[in-house]
Amino acid sequence: MASIVLKRTNQKMPLVGFGLWKVNNDTCAETVYNAIKSGYRLFDGAGDYGNEKEAGEGIKKAIDDGLVKREELFITSKLWNTFHSKEHVKELADYQLKLWGLDYFDLFLVHFPISLAYVDPAHRFPPGWTGDDGKVHLQNTPFQETWVAMESLVDAGLAKNIGVSNIQGALLLDIFRYARIEPQVLQVELHPYLTQEALLELAKTLGIAVTAYSSFGPQGWVELGMGKGATLLMEHDTITAVAKKNTKTPAQVLLRWATQQGLAVIPKSNSQTRLVENLDCVEFTLDEADIKAISSLNQNLRLNNPAEIDGRLAIFA
Amino acid sequence: MASIVLKRTNQKMPLVGFGLWKVNNDTCAETVYNAIKSGYRLFDGAGDYGNEKEAGEGIKKAIDDGLVKREELFITSKLWNTFHSKEHVKELADYQLKLWGLDYFDLFLVHFPISLAYVDPAHRFPPGWTGDDGKVHLQNTPFQETWVAMESLVDAGLAKNIGVSNIQGALLLDIFRYARIEPQVLQVELHPYLTQEALLELAKTLGIAVTAYSSFGPQGWVELGMGKGATLLMEHDTITAVAKKNTKTPAQVLLRWATQQGLAVIPKSNSQTRLVENLDCVEFTLDEADIKAISSLNQNLRLNNPAEIDGRLAIFA
Repeated sequence: MASIVLKRTNQKMPLVGFGLWKVNNDTCAETVYNAIKSGYRLFDGAGDYGNEKEAGEGIKKAIDDGLVKREELFITSKLWNTFHSKEHVKELADYQLKLWGLDYFDLFLVHFPISLAYVDPAHRFPPGWTGDDGKVHLQNTPFQETWVAMESLVDAGLAKNIGVSNIQGALLLDIFRYARIEPQVLQVELHPYLTQEALLELAKTLGIAVTAYSSFGPQGWVELGMGKGATLLMEHDTITAVAKKNTKTPAQVLLRWATQQGLAVIPKSNSQTRLVENLDCVEFTLDEADIKAISSLNQNLRLNNPAEIDGRLAIFA
Repeated sequence: MASIVLKRTNQKMPLVGFGLWKVNNDTCAETVYNAIKSGYRLFDGAGDYGNEKEAGEGIKKAIDDGLVKREELFITSKLWNTFHSKEHVKELADYQLKLWGLDYFDLFLVHFPISLAYVDPAHRFPPGWTGDDGKVHLQNTPFQETWVAMESLVDAGLAKNIGVSNIQGALLLDIFRYARIEPQVLQVELHPYLTQEALLELAKTLGIAVTAYSSFGPQGWVELGMGKGATLLMEHDTITAVAKKNTKTPAQVLLRWATQQGLAVIPKSNSQTRLVENLDCVEFTLDEADIKAISSLNQNLRLNNPAEIDGRLAIFA
């Protein structure tokens, strides 16, 4: 299975995984089970996705049925913004591991460089962006405090690898200044409308693996009314032409554009056919000219920008 | 004199100042003296510019000649990258104040969110980007350590205000989480080719004043061979048309575009005529439509990007 070797632990992270964002609770266990059956080994979850319990059920069934062993899986989860203070990081890792029914995560990421007021999981989980009053409440936890607590998770064996998400340039460099255990993975929005060449160059320099999310661009956001009016990448002439030329689907082309650049991807699909197709996206090679033509679609279109929720969350400004 | 009131100290920062970058040592004292005579009250210097001693001589002469009092001036300087560790911040502030012949700075900025290996000022000052071997040497000083030391300068009365430069989004937000004394000023590259709307919005939200540098865009960089081939803003049809309409110079239009948006500017000129013209740039009003037309020239063209020196300095990635 195509994979990236993580620098610190030498652990292999599959290049193509299954993303659990927006996977419905009622179908999640079955979807995860079928994905494992189809060959998926990496599952990308998060406290915020609200389906860790069901994902864990799918995994348990697959292990019980002898489809796979725990050590053959690569399970990623993420720490939500409301749990950035040092006394909450381990509490939440424990809480989320319990939901999954797991002893450890292969990768645990800080979901955003944003610190919000604590919400007791017993009160509401996942807590989302706002408090009970519908307002965003900031909490002044410096990122370093959160990172030190993340490092303790590795010490305690709760996470094999730790990393960050939705982080760029100057803050990423600052983390590397104080990190005892450096971030192994950076997960960011990345697709042909947001190619982030400079960030990829920096990640390469730092020796940090990159996972691209929202590989299909606006597609995953349209159902939330957040597609920003952009032409769907899967319907874009450049993409469909390359797909036709390679007798592949537009989705496969979009995933291959990323994986051929060494980026891990975590597509989601509710369809068994597409789920298998997505996994196949490392089995062909795009012409360099086509890679470039796809990259030239860049328009710095960011679909996931917390500044749109509250101006004080402008992490990409 | 048009000014911005800084939030914490209620001190007034002039909207138009004189930038000392690339002012030659042999003419610097006279240039500063003449600028004061022409009405300039803010001087924007930096350890890195290598002309603080001469700038201070011009100021001393102006004060001695009764042109101005110290308290009527607003002197800005900046801490260079090689002095980020806690034991060097005050040492350098003292050293730089001595060069200027001053007791305090009105504003002291961290020049870049970049930490380089210490260079003894007795060995070489300004130290620049590279060591004696011509290579860039990083130093792992987290930004928080530098900021805490900057706060001590305020406590000690060496700086009335402190701030940051070349910093964006997520790192700026992180500083506000741990700051006992919040940054009062953010100084960034900003011109019609790099309009940085999202960053301005964030600065507004945070209540931090913004100083725009390189207001003339590529102009100041061409002589360094770093103009990146862009059309000079002063020769751009949009700018010359607005200038003609207002019977102003293109330079005045570029400065007014910024100041009318509430941004402080720090142009430099070696010509006495232009120096006076630049100061006049708050005495007229651009039509909103013209402001918009100028802003639409944005192409995210960043002229000052340390990543071009060394990939490990990719603060804007």
